[in-house]
Amino acid sequence: MKKKISLLGATGSIGTQTLDIVQSNPEHFQLVSFSAGKNIEKVREITLKFQPSLVSVMRKEDAETLATDFPSTRFVYGKEGLILVAAHSGADMLVNAVIGSVGLEPTLHAIREGITIAISNKETLVAAGDIVIAEAQKRNVALLPVDSEHSALFQALNGENPKRVTRLILTASGGSFRDLSRDQLKQVTVEQALAHPNWSMGNKLTIDSATMMNKGLEVIEAHHLFNLPYDQIDCLLHKESIIHSMVEFEDTSVIAQLGSPDMRVPIQYAMTYPDRMPMQNAKPLRLEEIGALHFERMDFERFKALALAYEAGRTGGSMPTVMNAANEIAVQLFMMNKIPFLQIEEIVEQMMNEHVTISHPSLDEILEIDSNTRKLVHALV
Amino acid sequence: MKKKISLLGATGSIGTQTLDIVQSNPEHFQLVSFSAGKNIEKVREITLKFQPSLVSVMRKEDAETLATDFPSTRFVYGKEGLILVAAHSGADMLVNAVIGSVGLEPTLHAIREGITIAISNKETLVAAGDIVIAEAQKRNVALLPVDSEHSALFQALNGENPKRVTRLILTASGGSFRDLSRDQLKQVTVEQALAHPNWSMGNKLTIDSATMMNKGLEVIEAHHLFNLPYDQIDCLLHKESIIHSMVEFEDTSVIAQLGSPDMRVPIQYAMTYPDRMPMQNAKPLRLEEIGALHFERMDFERFKALALAYEAGRTGGSMPTVMNAANEIAVQLFMMNKIPFLQIEEIVEQMMNEHVTISHPSLDEILEIDSNTRKLVHALV
Repeated sequence: MKKKISLLGATGSIGTQTLDIVQSNPEHFQLVSFSAGKNIEKVREITLKFQPSLVSVMRKEDAETLATDFPSTRFVYGKEGLILVAAHSGADMLVNAVIGSVGLEPTLHAIREGITIAISNKETLVAAGDIVIAEAQKRNVALLPVDSEHSALFQALNGENPKRVTRLILTASGGSFRDLSRDQLKQVTVEQALAHPNWSMGNKLTIDSATMMNKGLEVIEAHHLFNLPYDQIDCLLHKESIIHSMVEFEDTSVIAQLGSPDMRVPIQYAMTYPDRMPMQNAKPLRLEEIGALHFERMDFERFKALALAYEAGRTGGSMPTVMNAANEIAVQLFMMNKIPFLQIEEIVEQMMNEHVTISHPSLDEILEIDSNTRKLVHALV
Repeated sequence: MKKKISLLGATGSIGTQTLDIVQSNPEHFQLVSFSAGKNIEKVREITLKFQPSLVSVMRKEDAETLATDFPSTRFVYGKEGLILVAAHSGADMLVNAVIGSVGLEPTLHAIREGITIAISNKETLVAAGDIVIAEAQKRNVALLPVDSEHSALFQALNGENPKRVTRLILTASGGSFRDLSRDQLKQVTVEQALAHPNWSMGNKLTIDSATMMNKGLEVIEAHHLFNLPYDQIDCLLHKESIIHSMVEFEDTSVIAQLGSPDMRVPIQYAMTYPDRMPMQNAKPLRLEEIGALHFERMDFERFKALALAYEAGRTGGSMPTVMNAANEIAVQLFMMNKIPFLQIEEIVEQMMNEHVTISHPSLDEILEIDSNTRKLVHALV
């Protein structure tokens, strides 16, 4: 039986790699619907190749043109369109690969439809983790991690009693600027920030890696996915990105997942879970060729964004929502050359300082706080 | 409910550590029987402390003396005694921690009694793996590995589909002489061989580590325990002994088990499997303190005993029995200063060359070949 896949964010880095996996394994997967933004040429290409029944794009006019050209596919658009794709009742699995908290409402709709979610969209769990996890538990819907770190943790937890976990250890490459001091960070450019040493990822994620906010978002994501307090979630600098993350158990045993950096591996694992299948054109890990793996204590002074993320996570309630929204806009402003690199974390810190936390925000409150924070950040600059 | 434990080899390194675990967790474990050799003071101590119902020692006269001193314990002796302890019907688990193929017959008796076996006695699986595994499958008896490498593989396979395994990767510290050339090995002494850089183990195992025959025995043990051909079992030099072993899957994902070198962890894991419990006084792994893990391709010229073991394993039938028996006696002769270090592998090679393999030996044939090989090696020197 083919697994029917819906895909949010088909033209991004994770989306493209998800499509590679579907295409390489037509006997296992079928793309039934997808969403994209404004890259209409890419949308045409994907529609032609996979013949999905439903496609969502950002703009109404694009949807209308596409509908004329592809009469056997239904085209929708905007926020409503995203939700229609996410909750597509013909799908067995939603791969949520959009960037940002825009993925939140579609995720909740997919959960309500009982669709298993492969979640790459960490901002959704950061902005509203409590609500998303509670809804998934209520509907008994699985949230399968796609991030390499969380996939590693998920794989390490295979067959284990979760009560025996003492620590999750997220590894961090350190990003593009890992060898620079804070002083040197004052001058860095967007181009420098986008040159990640190990991973090929989307731009937002690459900037988040450079600030280490990405690891912060992952810590909060791990807290929600694996139901552990922040004191049991550690980060470790590991510049080779070969050990993707580790779980430590009560008996001091540590289980780790390793591999060459290739996002298709965790994507495919979520798609085939609990089974595995061969990875096309992948580079097997040969530790004898790598020679050495290095580890360093995480430096919370150097990587201040990570300290902010732990603080937001520990505060809980609406604070992670504010942190995430402030970060999303600050990263956009940096990429538009409107603010220097270090101002990203300054903005996040300022927004967090100004926020009065709501302990148990409703979905509407979260959406409002998210939206307000974005406006406030824009107003700052 | 307490798990009732029988223990073969109570005064050895693994045996002593097994007793530590029983003693530290009286609410979980109870020692019901054990065997030891000639260390009668230690036998008295253990008997006094754990009050087992059955004890086996090597010599009849010791058994008789002990019976007078401990009237509520039954004392037996010799080969028969080992079998009585192994097959003790009051036990839930046998921890087989004897060294050498002397553990073979007791293991088979325990299997026939349906007793779960935590097996540290690798020579039993090397000498007669096909017979032991077939018997265990027939009786549906679990063989749980205790060796740190096999425990690591076993933990890495938790919850996984074994059909998806592409490679087992056994790590090897390189032993006491890892930095010496073959030329330098000509002069090494017993004392030097017994100084293992990472692990505290018994003497025979430490010598086997120095020749790398230990890894060879482990490769054959892994072949039997995990039912994989030798082409899918690799060895990797890893001098820190932190990654205890790894499993590679079809999707190129690698799962590893890590920890500070402490044999109590794999022993306890076998005893608590499939659950875990806290390890008393253990040193948690802190990779940031270790800094780097190193890996090197295994050198089969340098570590000739490992090449011999692969050859014996691939040949199969009675060849591993010969290799193991020759090695056991050669190691004894080295420890008695009767042969130089490099002659251990020469003897093994000579015995293998002279042997005409029986493809599917019976247990009696194995016992005879084992015994004859020992005599032949003694006659050589």
